[in-house]
Amino acid sequence: MTALSYAQEHRAGFLDELKAFVSIPSISTLPQHKDDVRRAADWLLEHLRGLGMTGELIPIEGGHPMVYAEWMQASGKPTVLIYGHYDVQPVDPLHEWTSPPFEPTIRGDDLYARGARDDKGQVFAVIKALESLLRTDGTLPLSVRVIVEGEEEIGSPGMYKWIDRHARKLACDFAWVSDGQLFAPGLPTIVTGLRGLVYTEVEVRGPSHDLHSGIYGGAAPNPVNAIASIIAGLKDRRGRVTVPRFYAAVRDPSPEEKASWERLPFSDEAYLKELGIPAAPGEQGFGILERRWTRPTLEVHGIAGGWTGAGAKTVIPARVTAKISMRLVPDQRASTIYRSFSKKVAKLAPQGVEVEVRELASSDPVLVNPKAKPVQVAATVARQVWDAEPVFTREGGSVPIVTKFDRVLKVPTVLFGFGLPDDNLHAPNEKFHIPNFYRGIETVIRFLQQVSA
Amino acid sequence: MTALSYAQEHRAGFLDELKAFVSIPSISTLPQHKDDVRRAADWLLEHLRGLGMTGELIPIEGGHPMVYAEWMQASGKPTVLIYGHYDVQPVDPLHEWTSPPFEPTIRGDDLYARGARDDKGQVFAVIKALESLLRTDGTLPLSVRVIVEGEEEIGSPGMYKWIDRHARKLACDFAWVSDGQLFAPGLPTIVTGLRGLVYTEVEVRGPSHDLHSGIYGGAAPNPVNAIASIIAGLKDRRGRVTVPRFYAAVRDPSPEEKASWERLPFSDEAYLKELGIPAAPGEQGFGILERRWTRPTLEVHGIAGGWTGAGAKTVIPARVTAKISMRLVPDQRASTIYRSFSKKVAKLAPQGVEVEVRELASSDPVLVNPKAKPVQVAATVARQVWDAEPVFTREGGSVPIVTKFDRVLKVPTVLFGFGLPDDNLHAPNEKFHIPNFYRGIETVIRFLQQVSA
Repeated sequence: MTALSYAQEHRAGFLDELKAFVSIPSISTLPQHKDDVRRAADWLLEHLRGLGMTGELIPIEGGHPMVYAEWMQASGKPTVLIYGHYDVQPVDPLHEWTSPPFEPTIRGDDLYARGARDDKGQVFAVIKALESLLRTDGTLPLSVRVIVEGEEEIGSPGMYKWIDRHARKLACDFAWVSDGQLFAPGLPTIVTGLRGLVYTEVEVRGPSHDLHSGIYGGAAPNPVNAIASIIAGLKDRRGRVTVPRFYAAVRDPSPEEKASWERLPFSDEAYLKELGIPAAPGEQGFGILERRWTRPTLEVHGIAGGWTGAGAKTVIPARVTAKISMRLVPDQRASTIYRSFSKKVAKLAPQGVEVEVRELASSDPVLVNPKAKPVQVAATVARQVWDAEPVFTREGGSVPIVTKFDRVLKVPTVLFGFGLPDDNLHAPNEKFHIPNFYRGIETVIRFLQQVSA
Repeated sequence: MTALSYAQEHRAGFLDELKAFVSIPSISTLPQHKDDVRRAADWLLEHLRGLGMTGELIPIEGGHPMVYAEWMQASGKPTVLIYGHYDVQPVDPLHEWTSPPFEPTIRGDDLYARGARDDKGQVFAVIKALESLLRTDGTLPLSVRVIVEGEEEIGSPGMYKWIDRHARKLACDFAWVSDGQLFAPGLPTIVTGLRGLVYTEVEVRGPSHDLHSGIYGGAAPNPVNAIASIIAGLKDRRGRVTVPRFYAAVRDPSPEEKASWERLPFSDEAYLKELGIPAAPGEQGFGILERRWTRPTLEVHGIAGGWTGAGAKTVIPARVTAKISMRLVPDQRASTIYRSFSKKVAKLAPQGVEVEVRELASSDPVLVNPKAKPVQVAATVARQVWDAEPVFTREGGSVPIVTKFDRVLKVPTVLFGFGLPDDNLHAPNEKFHIPNFYRGIETVIRFLQQVSA
């Protein structure tokens, strides 16, 4: 039996195993789910060992462990490093889920669960490809290292340090990451550019305690009014970020990239409909795709302060906190941008308040050379499995580990995701399109076979 | 025995009774305290009946009941309407309280508890004055109506309608309200001007569901960024509110008022120290007292939206809500200002978001004529009891009921409070200065005796 037919025959079983994996609520950012995160790591390690790989849980300082497994017996063949993450996002607002986030439910051709798509479903497709090869050929066509981390959704703070110190342990010729999406259903998509991230928490403090707004209003500093001025001041009227030299290192996309993107099936109308908005705001002078792929941006993720219960409480709050991040593009540097941002925030603070900026996560942006051999093989396989000409795109999101592979391991990464644009990742009703799960397994089987030929 | 000596002899007992009253957590804005609010009303009605007054709980449509009691046997004498409120503010942040908010605790000369000062302690002083007169003279020197409401801290929505419909039930010659403070310790203060209030909730909605900020950031509307622009746009660089015609009806204080305020013991330095801030922001061109008493202002009381838990979640939130109020001064009208505000907010909203403004509470500002007889008698009594020349000031806060007394009952109100400026009202560690409780009782006894003479 070939690996491809093994994969076809075991589809139902693979799906059941994936359901077990996504049932574990491994929310990395919430301390109360620490044990669940560990449980997901244990489950996955046992699973990889069951395939005949050797492995271990690698402790990450101050964080959740990384699952490591390897099969290094293909001497004379290249080594691929496979990366994924087993941690997931929080689920709030819970009441907006049609079925509970950790009770995987099939509706139509989709599997609904937190993590079904981001990233448990996708990394599991890669693992099932390894299983199909090992169970039929008894061997793999190349050597394989697998790392599946538990802190992607919180910015992988400990993982970076670990890689800096243990680069040799991940020695490889190229990397494979399935943590993304097709540009459109049926359109295989290889990503060659990712945005970086600087994620901060800004706290504004005013009076030493909450004050009665009637008695003090008009002559006491109000931290909420102040943070509003700060946030509003971080962009100008044209939607441009006002942090000094923010755009200085931004590299324009190549004319070839721009031309290829114009051929993409992208409709402004469909985009607005998906988001349920009347118009797309943003930086003027750039198209919607350019704004998401090639332009840096600044977003507030959350804000909280003062009286937020029911009814009217007339208080001037003592403090307010906002989570503010910037997405970066080549060749911006996270460390430089963080410093300029902190200074700008301090400068925007009105009289009478104190401001503190804390850096919660950061990663540099990255570009992959589309002419690297593994990328080219992936494109060939894409034509075979998906019966369509693959596209090279960028992504607005960050897969910070790819930066590390580029800078520390100095290898190219194939970014080939199996998600769809409407998978609701990081939102209620996250789903994974089940046919893409199966096609993903086939894609990886063929890739591993052909890249080592 | 005279009423005054009765009051002196029963000080310890009065304080114990006040402790029982403030032990009831009658937080009107929190639905889970509905029964406690009712319990406070029942307790107070029983107490007033115990003094020999007749009374009832008057149901307020959709809200907490009003306690009504009367003693109308002084034929040929004027009738005073006494007003107070038995509801209190929420207690968060709870961990900042030195002793639990509903376990009244004496430290030094102060009684610490939520409501000790605002307004249970003060209205109770008035009631203890009535008791002292009734228990010694067996009668009162004038007819008395007492109303103590349970919705002052939520803007008295139902109470206003009730007064509009039942003005005859409150027929009187003047009103007495103790729900304020001395300008400085030992300085008796009669308030002749109060700011009005328009309290709103502004909700900004963006995408139909939370979005991944990496994928969509830069080309999706962000409600938090949007509300920040709206809030920031509601004031200009000089601290002036930008709502059209906001200042059109603002009446300047009289030269006499301004001159008298210059004699007040007010120190900018002490004010900044009390608030724990380095400088006083606000509308330029006006002193701190003017900003609080004679100038309208706009404050945000609370804001909440998106990810506010620990760590970094990269989401563009679907919605955010802020509580925004304006304090009004004569002759601004709450209804006019609310309409202009709503329009301005809609105009400030950036492309791609929807905005909704809800009015939670409103009241017009009010001025009292300092030459009215009850106000003059109160000034005379102030000299006797407090051994100091009383001052006429304004207050930045709103006592919305006074507007109703002015407009509907068409009577002047004596606003004579016994609180101190550092009583932490609406904040943790609210307190009431116990000597002022006793002096308040004496003030009211003498006032009732002399005003009816």
